[in-house]
Amino acid sequence: MIVIGEKINGMFKSIRESIQTKNKQIIQDIVKKQLESGADVLDVNVGPASADQLNDMVWLINTIREVTKAPLAVDTTKADVMDKGLSLAGENCFLNSTTGEEEKLNIFLPMAKKHNSKIIALTIDKAGIPNHAEGRLEIAANIMAKAMEFEIDPSNLYIDAVILPVNVAQQHAPAVLETIKQTKLLCDPSPKTILGLSNVSQGTNVRQLIDRTFLVMAIASGLDAAIVNPLDKDLMDAMITAELLSGKNIYCDSFLQAYRRK
Amino acid sequence: MIVIGEKINGMFKSIRESIQTKNKQIIQDIVKKQLESGADVLDVNVGPASADQLNDMVWLINTIREVTKAPLAVDTTKADVMDKGLSLAGENCFLNSTTGEEEKLNIFLPMAKKHNSKIIALTIDKAGIPNHAEGRLEIAANIMAKAMEFEIDPSNLYIDAVILPVNVAQQHAPAVLETIKQTKLLCDPSPKTILGLSNVSQGTNVRQLIDRTFLVMAIASGLDAAIVNPLDKDLMDAMITAELLSGKNIYCDSFLQAYRRK
Repeated sequence: MIVIGEKINGMFKSIRESIQTKNKQIIQDIVKKQLESGADVLDVNVGPASADQLNDMVWLINTIREVTKAPLAVDTTKADVMDKGLSLAGENCFLNSTTGEEEKLNIFLPMAKKHNSKIIALTIDKAGIPNHAEGRLEIAANIMAKAMEFEIDPSNLYIDAVILPVNVAQQHAPAVLETIKQTKLLCDPSPKTILGLSNVSQGTNVRQLIDRTFLVMAIASGLDAAIVNPLDKDLMDAMITAELLSGKNIYCDSFLQAYRRK
Repeated sequence: MIVIGEKINGMFKSIRESIQTKNKQIIQDIVKKQLESGADVLDVNVGPASADQLNDMVWLINTIREVTKAPLAVDTTKADVMDKGLSLAGENCFLNSTTGEEEKLNIFLPMAKKHNSKIIALTIDKAGIPNHAEGRLEIAANIMAKAMEFEIDPSNLYIDAVILPVNVAQQHAPAVLETIKQTKLLCDPSPKTILGLSNVSQGTNVRQLIDRTFLVMAIASGLDAAIVNPLDKDLMDAMITAELLSGKNIYCDSFLQAYRRK
């Protein structure tokens, strides 16, 4: 399971202010905390309030690179910001993200190939996010076919079935789990699956309980990676335990301590 | 999801002593607590230390029936104890359990039909518990075929894929989850699936975390019923949340309170 830490995001007030005031310390502290807590990869998003997304992304990545070589997930919808971000982040990072829309795939897939990046691809097309698994899988299959045209190995493709908040779109949760299960059947090697987890609990009163329960269900469905808050210890313990029960971690009496990073 | 409360079991010291001293109060208190905490059905097991299993079962069921008409799961390996227990427990209770061995099925299936009971059937045969899902499913298919010979509706059959403790048989956990998923494909209507949950965490240091994580994974795999400790509030909340995310409970902001029984 690849854990992508979600905390370097301009949506969070402290990160937004750090970007505005160019306060490296706060950014670098949260980088270290996420890595110590089990993040394998760090998401980097300047946030919607940024007035200069390109330069803010450059500053953020340079600030992070002063303290770690960990892979980054460059998180933007803008092609120029993505291209610059991936060139600074280095190889084996994540392009986060493209949708399944043809014109986006035509931009982002060759860009990922150029930078030797993995690709997070959302099951969204012009009509939006399908209500059911079938529609999501159709978009996933189209993305995969397009990736193969660009000679991208399906195993570098991370399909994100796009979970919506359970309080407004409850029927999407089982659809996402079914999409995760069936994405594995699209081809061999299959694309990988990823989840931007915390969206599921937006606006609810028991966010952590919903987050960790959905993560465990997604792991039981075959999930390969998730964008999460690694500082949520109960979430990380649930993930470690689900991986144990999936046969992906080896049991020992102190398995939690063994698989925690600190 | 059918919740079967596990607490009326002579393996627990207080229950064992209550049976020996014929202390109704302790039994009836734990009956009420389990029902208030969300148990739909109560398991009834006199325990291995009972010197007179038949009369202890009669006393236990009569004691329970003084305070509730809730369905019981009569839990014994002995045919005479089962027959007497089911006749006292009444219709729509559970026969817990038969294995897939032919001679047991020949005894217990007609007995369940006579008492109009649901049947919990373990995927165990003469050779023991198979290591992989395929072997468990083969036994499940045999049980189902045998049940149809006795004109028992498959939907009254609860297949228990027999989880072993993760600390000694880790590879069984994913095999059980796979068995749950595939049991649904055996026929239409399919047999139901059930789990004696707490066995998974026997001998480990974090029993509740392992129990609730495995329960959530099993629900994601399609589980219909589980024998659990309903007094474990974190377990029950995880179950309610997993059912929410499966689309089986309806979301409201106070969904936990709404689906808790007290």
